[in-house]
Amino acid sequence: MNGRTALKPLTLVIAPDSFKGSLSAADAADAMAAGTRGACLALGLPEARITLCPMADGGEGTLDAIAAVWGVTPRTMLTVDALGRSRRARYATSADGRIGLIEAAESNGLPLVADAVPKPHRADTFGVGLLARELLDQNVAEILVCVGGSASTDGGTGLLAGLGARFLDAAGTPVAPGGAGLARIALIDLSELHPRARTVRWRLAVDVNNPLCGPTGAAAVFGPQKGAQPRDIAELDAGLAHLAAIVLDMTGEDMTDRPGAGAAGGMPATLVPLLRAELVPGSTLVADAVGLPHKMANADLVLTGEGSFDSQSLGGKVAVAVARLAPAGCPVVVIAGRVALSAADTAASGVAAAFSIAGGPATLDDLQQNAAARVRETTAHAVALFLHSR
Amino acid sequence: MNGRTALKPLTLVIAPDSFKGSLSAADAADAMAAGTRGACLALGLPEARITLCPMADGGEGTLDAIAAVWGVTPRTMLTVDALGRSRRARYATSADGRIGLIEAAESNGLPLVADAVPKPHRADTFGVGLLARELLDQNVAEILVCVGGSASTDGGTGLLAGLGARFLDAAGTPVAPGGAGLARIALIDLSELHPRARTVRWRLAVDVNNPLCGPTGAAAVFGPQKGAQPRDIAELDAGLAHLAAIVLDMTGEDMTDRPGAGAAGGMPATLVPLLRAELVPGSTLVADAVGLPHKMANADLVLTGEGSFDSQSLGGKVAVAVARLAPAGCPVVVIAGRVALSAADTAASGVAAAFSIAGGPATLDDLQQNAAARVRETTAHAVALFLHSR
Repeated sequence: MNGRTALKPLTLVIAPDSFKGSLSAADAADAMAAGTRGACLALGLPEARITLCPMADGGEGTLDAIAAVWGVTPRTMLTVDALGRSRRARYATSADGRIGLIEAAESNGLPLVADAVPKPHRADTFGVGLLARELLDQNVAEILVCVGGSASTDGGTGLLAGLGARFLDAAGTPVAPGGAGLARIALIDLSELHPRARTVRWRLAVDVNNPLCGPTGAAAVFGPQKGAQPRDIAELDAGLAHLAAIVLDMTGEDMTDRPGAGAAGGMPATLVPLLRAELVPGSTLVADAVGLPHKMANADLVLTGEGSFDSQSLGGKVAVAVARLAPAGCPVVVIAGRVALSAADTAASGVAAAFSIAGGPATLDDLQQNAAARVRETTAHAVALFLHSR
Repeated sequence: MNGRTALKPLTLVIAPDSFKGSLSAADAADAMAAGTRGACLALGLPEARITLCPMADGGEGTLDAIAAVWGVTPRTMLTVDALGRSRRARYATSADGRIGLIEAAESNGLPLVADAVPKPHRADTFGVGLLARELLDQNVAEILVCVGGSASTDGGTGLLAGLGARFLDAAGTPVAPGGAGLARIALIDLSELHPRARTVRWRLAVDVNNPLCGPTGAAAVFGPQKGAQPRDIAELDAGLAHLAAIVLDMTGEDMTDRPGAGAAGGMPATLVPLLRAELVPGSTLVADAVGLPHKMANADLVLTGEGSFDSQSLGGKVAVAVARLAPAGCPVVVIAGRVALSAADTAASGVAAAFSIAGGPATLDDLQQNAAARVRETTAHAVALFLHSR
């Protein structure tokens, strides 16, 4: 710390994911802010200018996290679950009404049908379509869909049906809902599709690279957790392959080998070619939704964090996504329950440095019980080093 | 990291203590150097200018640590142990011959008499005096004595006797060696003291604040570990009090309440008033001996470390001593097995930041087994943050 910068207040953005099992993203951000204030105080510096931006990775809790940063309360509407049963589900729109946000699992989530006999052929995304229809009616310009945690394997046909599309067999009769009807589709009729469905921008948060079909496809990999037996898997896989062929015929776009098309029961198989939906990593979707790049534009330092900073983090989880979006020259420091990446891999990821909240020998339970205090302390040390180095 | 400093090589001093139970100070320093090189490499910086200066705290191993930095091999001479039994012991002199270094426990150490029936009254520092006499004969200008780990409670009378002093009873007869004779001393005859004994500078590494006598004195607190029973303790305590009275009478200096006079069986009780010995914290003695302040004069960053960075560290252990001696504006970072000090207490100690080598949940055994790799990795993260912040 030299005289030139000693009295300039630190401008800091704090954008952690939740620490699974111990801290929400908001609690983690608060603990990091407390540690930062402590470090500034100990050095006699003016209070830092801190922007809190708790993050999420596109999985469960993303709706709440983004709504909190938007400063809005999610709204509730009547829709259906993956088995067509009536259910109230939440969605949110940005304060300016421009962006609509759906956490698909609010409607077609697997836990919501845990009370019923698994029906992997029947489960569909129709309820997600009803949520999207509501957003189209509200005139949003962009719809974000977090697709994770689904119970369905319907190639997104339910969602499109909820927006007015009709999936007809060779006799012109609507096919059965869910994966069960896919193999019989002869025609996709978009004539009654919601008029705004193809004018808004769609972005889907997708964090898997699985293709639509085959041994690493939607049915084979994710079917079993949805209750599919081996024979079901074969039928669902064949149904998705048939759907892809129909869509290819309609649009010239082949979704069979597209990485990520196997997400959420194959939702991208129809949403990408028919609605021009973009597939983006969950963390990137969240970062854009909350305006993180803009918030970081003038930051001296960015703090992020997550429960475990490891090889999975390199696949687009929050910390690395934050590092990729930070402006050049602004170091991004990770505070994590566990730091399992080498320093070299950390550097290669764009993260300046990563510190575990462990202060010595400790059990996982110790760290989880004392997570807030440990995050605060570790942050204080890291920020102090940063301040001393300026 | 901005353009201005990007290509300037980092000048770094690495001065850790040992990590007890896992790494020698030299091994810890090597691991920190490897981490530093990795961080510079990852950032595309030129190789850092690293000065390795493994430290010690004045306790066991200090002789080897200082000799290593001096680039000398300790010499061996014949002397005696605390019970007067013949023993070879080591000492060192600096390359220029100006400074002599004694680790007292090489002669009067408690482990050296563990094979014998404890004789807390008999044990003395005479052998340490023979080591010191050798150094005086070699014309050193300064003698450093690491006093820890002693078996004796003789108020330093043995050491002085080794240099030619005579402790006489009322009849003019030499009293018995060790604590046993203290109560009968009537006169201290320095007429045959080594002629250089009072011209050299003496410095004793003392890390306790115990007074000479009383319930927190040398006999009461340290006597039991030397084999003293309650009645022995009372006699040794009375002997030391009598010695202090005689010395007060001779010199006008009252050692009774001096903090630290209770170290090493009361060695300071005679060495301070009769030889003008200075009491210094062990880490400070080591730092001076190896020229650490000079080495740090142009450093951009100093790394230190120890097994546990905790409240005891504030009492003058290596890390905090290094921080106190570092030049203004040069941050000192602690890498430790355990960081138990709060960030606020760390800042108050003069240390910029402290990081544990734990990367998450881990047992003490895990950390000790993998200490070198963990020190390297943690250092790489800390140095990377420092480099990014410049």
